[in-house]
Amino acid sequence: MKTKTITDLGEFGLIEFIKKNNTEPKKFHNICLDIGDDCFAFSPYTKQKYIVTTDILIENIHFKRNWATPEQIGQKAIEVNVSDIASMGNSKPLYAFVSLGIPESTSVEFIKKLFNSIKNTCNKYEIHLSGGDTVRSKDITISVTLIGICYEKPVSRTGSKSGDLIYVTGTFGDSSAGLEILLAGKKNLTSFEKNLIKKHLVPQARLKEANLISKNIKITSMTDCSDGLFKSVELLTQNKGAVINTENIPLSKNLIKYTNGNHNNLYNHALFGGEEFELVFTIDKRHEKKLKKLLPSATCIGYINNSNKVTYLENGKTKKVKYNGYNHF
Amino acid sequence: MKTKTITDLGEFGLIEFIKKNNTEPKKFHNICLDIGDDCFAFSPYTKQKYIVTTDILIENIHFKRNWATPEQIGQKAIEVNVSDIASMGNSKPLYAFVSLGIPESTSVEFIKKLFNSIKNTCNKYEIHLSGGDTVRSKDITISVTLIGICYEKPVSRTGSKSGDLIYVTGTFGDSSAGLEILLAGKKNLTSFEKNLIKKHLVPQARLKEANLISKNIKITSMTDCSDGLFKSVELLTQNKGAVINTENIPLSKNLIKYTNGNHNNLYNHALFGGEEFELVFTIDKRHEKKLKKLLPSATCIGYINNSNKVTYLENGKTKKVKYNGYNHF
Repeated sequence: MKTKTITDLGEFGLIEFIKKNNTEPKKFHNICLDIGDDCFAFSPYTKQKYIVTTDILIENIHFKRNWATPEQIGQKAIEVNVSDIASMGNSKPLYAFVSLGIPESTSVEFIKKLFNSIKNTCNKYEIHLSGGDTVRSKDITISVTLIGICYEKPVSRTGSKSGDLIYVTGTFGDSSAGLEILLAGKKNLTSFEKNLIKKHLVPQARLKEANLISKNIKITSMTDCSDGLFKSVELLTQNKGAVINTENIPLSKNLIKYTNGNHNNLYNHALFGGEEFELVFTIDKRHEKKLKKLLPSATCIGYINNSNKVTYLENGKTKKVKYNGYNHF
Repeated sequence: MKTKTITDLGEFGLIEFIKKNNTEPKKFHNICLDIGDDCFAFSPYTKQKYIVTTDILIENIHFKRNWATPEQIGQKAIEVNVSDIASMGNSKPLYAFVSLGIPESTSVEFIKKLFNSIKNTCNKYEIHLSGGDTVRSKDITISVTLIGICYEKPVSRTGSKSGDLIYVTGTFGDSSAGLEILLAGKKNLTSFEKNLIKKHLVPQARLKEANLISKNIKITSMTDCSDGLFKSVELLTQNKGAVINTENIPLSKNLIKYTNGNHNNLYNHALFGGEEFELVFTIDKRHEKKLKKLLPSATCIGYINNSNKVTYLENGKTKKVKYNGYNHF
């Protein structure tokens, strides 16, 4: 019998196993939001909650040194964690713990640039670099744990209700197209290709937008889109259902140019492309006007219902969409 | 000109660079103990402080799969972080964040055993496994961030004063000798060799001992011995000095048997062997009686003075000791 490997189990199988077999929290843990959301939240004595997220980036899996400068790698390592903090709503990142695995042959210049970029990105968000570990490794490894504060009840992935509108920030598919261009190793890049690559290499956390909307409107659920829009919608839908109008999914001019009219290709990037780090969130319909005023750039892509499934429409007609996303193993 | 690599800079050079170039903490960060100690500590509103530590373990650098079972690897990953929490004094670990990098070929059985061991070790300390990340990697990578609470002012590495006695728990050199035996790949191990290996593979955090002494006596400084006793003494001495009576350093029967009368070899392991995870701490002399009653197994190995250097004595005579410790790069 063939031994079952982690590739057979898959990322979601592994996460399922961990959730089922996890430690049982006790009262003194004061948990507000447990493992499995964008952040973990706890609060022992105060109304404010501590929120914690962690991410690990490994060379040749998540980035390549001939694609990305040390500055870009460092910036991304912090931005992706700030993005998780942002998706809790009304929050502020505070303390970063950065562990670095560094191959012996790495130049001091590279490490100093990487560190300075981590520091500069921390400074941008008033995060204090508070600890870490430095070890030898075969590939550059960057593990970041970010602790922040959430000034209200954290916005989880699970609070949406039937009738809520699904909104997003930014555009979708750019990061994934940028990665595709990098993987193809194309030289002499056009300006739209360069823009797509930039979105992949240096995503920007939507902290300002998340704070703006969550301070002023009740956001019923929210996530940052790290594993693709399709997956994000699934996370916010949970045991309910949803309708997504695919023609409303915001797409950049860069992506449209890049896919050159290939409709399938365009929507593959937009629905399944990971590492977009845009916000996907739900609000009660009666707050729509206020939201449009606050954040005119946000786009409604559909709504939550009780159908028990996610239906994709294209100009009113059902569109068959099959999961085509990235599996980590 | 040869490019300077991370090996040229060294671990301590890198840490020095990070300390000098770090972010400037702001008032709202409420820092009690900044980067560079065993833990980072912060406290916004309460007397109790949150303490945070992080460690990263990488296969073939920190462990090998043909040496250690997944159960041992998982247990060690948690114990070494609990050890850092312990060295803050009067503390309790609470939340663990575990990121796993897993090669595609890894068997599901291995991962399940690894996870269950991490979970069981968390349960042993009433830690809640609160989050993490799972990614693909070439070598098994385990990054743990542990958040705990410290019920009083954290005991830093820097509080000792001239005249304080230097105490330790346990024995020294065993873990390092265990590693040497593993590296030699020897078959047919004797029972004392097996014991030394066990100390290396499954160290036990001294949380109970650290809490017992720090709740009852003012500990002026403390660290857990992760980079060797020589290094720990240096950390607690800071800009002061110390005298160490080498003949008082506690040694196990296993180590004495293993080094078979080779004095140099014995003290090389005891002074420079890393990953011992015993407590090294200082107290005012007037608390010595109380300490001996509380923790009879603790041993006094010397005292702090103002000589500006650490002097090693052997039966009253100066002993030349040159740094011979592990460098991570």
